[in-house]
Amino acid sequence: MNNFIFHNPTKLIFGKDTIANISTEIPAGKKILVTFGGGSVKRNGVYDQVTKALEKFEYVEFWGIEPNPTVETLRKAISIVKSENIDFILAVGGGSVIDGSKLIAAAALIEEDAWDLVRRPSLYKGVLPLASVLTLPATGSEMNRGAVITNQNLKEKFAFYSAYPIFSILDPQVTFSLPQFQIACGLTDTFVHVLEQYLTTTDQSQLMDRWAEGILSTIVEIAPRVCSKDLDYNDMATFMLSATMALNGFIAMGVTQDWATHMIGHELSALHNLTHGHTLAIVLKGTMWVMKEEKGDKILQMGRRIWGIEETDKEQAIRMTIECTDGFFRSLGLKTRLSENNIGADTIDEIVKRFRERDVHFGENRSVDPENTRKILEYVM
Amino acid sequence: MNNFIFHNPTKLIFGKDTIANISTEIPAGKKILVTFGGGSVKRNGVYDQVTKALEKFEYVEFWGIEPNPTVETLRKAISIVKSENIDFILAVGGGSVIDGSKLIAAAALIEEDAWDLVRRPSLYKGVLPLASVLTLPATGSEMNRGAVITNQNLKEKFAFYSAYPIFSILDPQVTFSLPQFQIACGLTDTFVHVLEQYLTTTDQSQLMDRWAEGILSTIVEIAPRVCSKDLDYNDMATFMLSATMALNGFIAMGVTQDWATHMIGHELSALHNLTHGHTLAIVLKGTMWVMKEEKGDKILQMGRRIWGIEETDKEQAIRMTIECTDGFFRSLGLKTRLSENNIGADTIDEIVKRFRERDVHFGENRSVDPENTRKILEYVM
Repeated sequence: MNNFIFHNPTKLIFGKDTIANISTEIPAGKKILVTFGGGSVKRNGVYDQVTKALEKFEYVEFWGIEPNPTVETLRKAISIVKSENIDFILAVGGGSVIDGSKLIAAAALIEEDAWDLVRRPSLYKGVLPLASVLTLPATGSEMNRGAVITNQNLKEKFAFYSAYPIFSILDPQVTFSLPQFQIACGLTDTFVHVLEQYLTTTDQSQLMDRWAEGILSTIVEIAPRVCSKDLDYNDMATFMLSATMALNGFIAMGVTQDWATHMIGHELSALHNLTHGHTLAIVLKGTMWVMKEEKGDKILQMGRRIWGIEETDKEQAIRMTIECTDGFFRSLGLKTRLSENNIGADTIDEIVKRFRERDVHFGENRSVDPENTRKILEYVM
Repeated sequence: MNNFIFHNPTKLIFGKDTIANISTEIPAGKKILVTFGGGSVKRNGVYDQVTKALEKFEYVEFWGIEPNPTVETLRKAISIVKSENIDFILAVGGGSVIDGSKLIAAAALIEEDAWDLVRRPSLYKGVLPLASVLTLPATGSEMNRGAVITNQNLKEKFAFYSAYPIFSILDPQVTFSLPQFQIACGLTDTFVHVLEQYLTTTDQSQLMDRWAEGILSTIVEIAPRVCSKDLDYNDMATFMLSATMALNGFIAMGVTQDWATHMIGHELSALHNLTHGHTLAIVLKGTMWVMKEEKGDKILQMGRRIWGIEETDKEQAIRMTIECTDGFFRSLGLKTRLSENNIGADTIDEIVKRFRERDVHFGENRSVDPENTRKILEYVM
């Protein structure tokens, strides 16, 4: 087990009718920027609950943080925060709204442009206090310090690290009105977040392995019901809790991580504006297959414990585990080939070119270089 | 799934040679009370590492917090904190030292006697900042806000709730010199902490079930090696991490809890000064058997997933699960009958008398009353 420091100070407020807690969790006297995505929160009642809880506060609404939040949009919010002397950010939405709000909360404290902050962590000077009301289980942003920001002009997408939300409110009832595709992508995002922390070297931590497998098994168990038309509160609560626990550090203690699938997926989002979880469903099969020399033993463990695949021939068992995993994503209704999503060889060339320019080496062992990236993407063509 | 609030702000610093981090984690200028148990930390090198890290601080040492820490001893430390204007407590030891230090840190801020604070939570006025260096994996006190305090004079033992440690340092290397009996009790304590949060109503949270089972399976897997003479760092690290994760709220989200076994065990400690983990190994079998109408379905789930017991006849499967669990404790070298520990019927009478006087109703459904307590203890006579 590797040495580690774990410190996650986010207060998680979870359950039915908990949005009203905003009124007591935000310190009195704060002037709040409330950030939103599109209008779905007006249709599902979340907006009404939030504004009711904010009755005694002074606040400004900022609408229009898009999926794959862009720095172009966020700059407008940062300008409002500065001009209106805002001193608290409340993000109401999914991972994109929370991610974008993390950049708003940090860029408000510096003179430089927000994209410079994304590209140069040394500019970071802290954040305004930030909290969230989550409406879409997927990214885990509600209980971690990461964000992913897109530059629409440059067609680039990069990770950015800021502070943990002070509190996050998760009412599973808000998930009942989610579109089927968003649920499929949220389940996939959760699943692959776990795998980025699990499909690495074996025997680093038996306990973290069990907890990672616990999330995977839970997602597989609930997925058919969460994707049905007949939704159950406990299932949606389990989905929401699983998504948060998949990327809040709880399964990362003492183990190495990978994230190559994410790094390649971000490029697909940047170039084709695909939903994040969808890109992971496309790339993962390629990463597992191309990196099977490194990841083979852990893939076999996953096969045994998640899919019940008994190993007779090692390569055959690896292949079956990868197919079962891909089959799981396809069972959610996701198209997991590049060609099915009208993405061609030119995109592979562009991604490889970018990775060469940046001289990247992703993955647990820094071995996902531009050449392996090409192999991964060609495998899922 | 029940509504819940999760908020665990303790910074966990885990791994080899991490004790030196004390020097940067405690704010400069603090005057520290460093609390210890007996002299084992002088023999295993922990004392030298701690004092080296504290070179630049002003500190006072307080020695002699005993297993089952007594308010009589702690009063002396509280008096020193007040007279010496101490403003930081650093606990160096196992759960007893940390538990006792939690009472010191809280009682230092009030005028009333420390035992009054244990018995009347309304007296609580906050705490001095507290941190810990853990030397014995067992109680989870290093990452929760609970403590258990004994009144030697009254032969009573009660839980007390204070604040989370600001940081806790866990270097698994310190466990290599632990006596075999302490390791057995630590494994048992961890195992039963999980069961107090797991052996309740089924289907409250699939994910929490998986995580609880993950700790149980891990403990069962490592126990033979952790109890051997040929110790391995990864195994001891897994033991230490499991003990912390068993009682820091991570497996308690959205589920009911029980704690009847603990409440009865505390009385055995109070009356006979038995090690806490040992009392749990004695009581648990009785709780599982007597409460099998309530807990049957979860006992069956535990049997299937932990011990591999396939259910044919329900009562037979419950009986086998209980025997496997008891057998696990006995495999660690613990004597799990009252009579084996020279405890007789008079102790049962005394505990039932106390519980009648206090009109207790323990357990998930408040059904472990004095009469069921008698049945539980008679079952393990």
